Amino acid sequence: MHSFQVETGDKEALIDITGRVEKALGETGLKSGVCFVFIPHTTAGLTINENADPSVRRDILYGLSSMVPSRGYTHSEGNSPAHIKASMMGFSVLVPVEGGRLKLGQWQGIYLCEFDGPRQRQVWVSSNVPGTEPVHPVPGTSLK
Amino acid sequence: MHSFQVETGDKEALIDITGRVEKALGETGLKSGVCFVFIPHTTAGLTINENADPSVRRDILYGLSSMVPSRGYTHSEGNSPAHIKASMMGFSVLVPVEGGRLKLGQWQGIYLCEFDGPRQRQVWVSSNVPGTEPVHPVPGTSLK
Amino acid sequence: MHSFQVETGDKEALIDITGRVEKALGETGLKSGVCFVFIPHTTAGLTINENADPSVRRDILYGLSSMVPSRGYTHSEGNSPAHIKASMMGFSVLVPVEGGRLKLGQWQGIYLCEFDGPRQRQVWVSSNVPGTEPVHPVPGTSLK
Repeated sequence: MHSFQVETGDKEALIDITGRVEKALGETGLKSGVCFVFIPHTTAGLTINENADPSVRRDILYGLSSMVPSRGYTHSEGNSPAHIKASMMGFSVLVPVEGGRLKLGQWQGIYLCEFDGPRQRQVWVSSNVPGTEPVHPVPGTSLK
Repeated sequence: MHSFQVETGDKEALIDITGRVEKALGETGLKSGVCFVFIPHTTAGLTINENADPSVRRDILYGLSSMVPSRGYTHSEGNSPAHIKASMMGFSVLVPVEGGRLKLGQWQGIYLCEFDGPRQRQVWVSSNVPGTEPVHPVPGTSLK
Repeated sequence: MHSFQVETGDKEALIDITGRVEKALGETGLKSGVCFVFIPHTTAGLTINENADPSVRRDILYGLSSMVPSRGYTHSEGNSPAHIKASMMGFSVLVPVEGGRLKLGQWQGIYLCEFDGPRQRQVWVSSNVPGTEPVHPVPGTSLK
């Protein structure tokens, strides 16, 4: 399990973490399979979305804030909208891996979704392989 | 594939299943990797969220019900909001595993999201490992 | 990684791809584990939902369109609602596999969620197994 930290800077933000996920993927040694990205928080989530026009990120935050009610909650910390938005986005993303690199669609990037910042957030990255990678025996080698 | 059943008790509820998932994980024998939790229903989902203040669970249910329209549907069973909420939460969660235990964030729990209860629901748990676990060559054995 | 293409036909549609996923799963050779389905787009997503009454699919599209605001965006392409809906549904689904077949719940099907069509979309399918499948010891080899 490899990890990195993100300073989110704002109350709400979609932060492109594609490069950092790819760097952490490199550390796992996985060459082919599925990269598993997990966020161990409850008011921040993960998603995939457009990597080109930054206005898409602003529009996603605007859309979610328009949908999720701003009042009527009982949780005393006042951040219930952030908990809901995080569950709507989810706490993990999975991305195919080929040749040791993320195999995303042309327009896809991986985003940390901060809904109750600014905070320091953690992101965990692993391959889908338990134990040391690669799990396959390399042809011709012994794995005793 | 290990499974357990949950009596959901109410029309809508977020039910903490973290302990039952961890027990099922123990039965899979997975020590390190990713735990896959799946719900084989269409009006109940799974999510991760805060494990401390139970008002967060009520607020999530309130927020979703405020968002999802209560009328205007064509499906004759009358439970279309439940289908939509389930898709918004999703039907699986993935959690890192280390030392045979779930490696969740400090405030994270795993929740079954009932949107059309009360019912008896199933939850399926497996490791990410096909076949018998562990898939790693046991130290000292050969896998040539 | 196996893939197939889907002509979505409409501006918005939920298209049952369960059969095509199962066919692609057959090509991976995975017999037991988890099937990973990924969509490499940003205005289309994947979800699981009811496979029986087609009105559920229409109701899901109606519900999402009622929730997500139709205006107030800055992204010049005008498809920000599609980006938001795609992130709400997600870009991958995971399904247990037993005996080489998808192990879905009785009422579950896998859906491609088109939110900005009609377009030709790709769907990628792999097992959770890095490298060539199957990862299981090939019959005749030793894993003692």
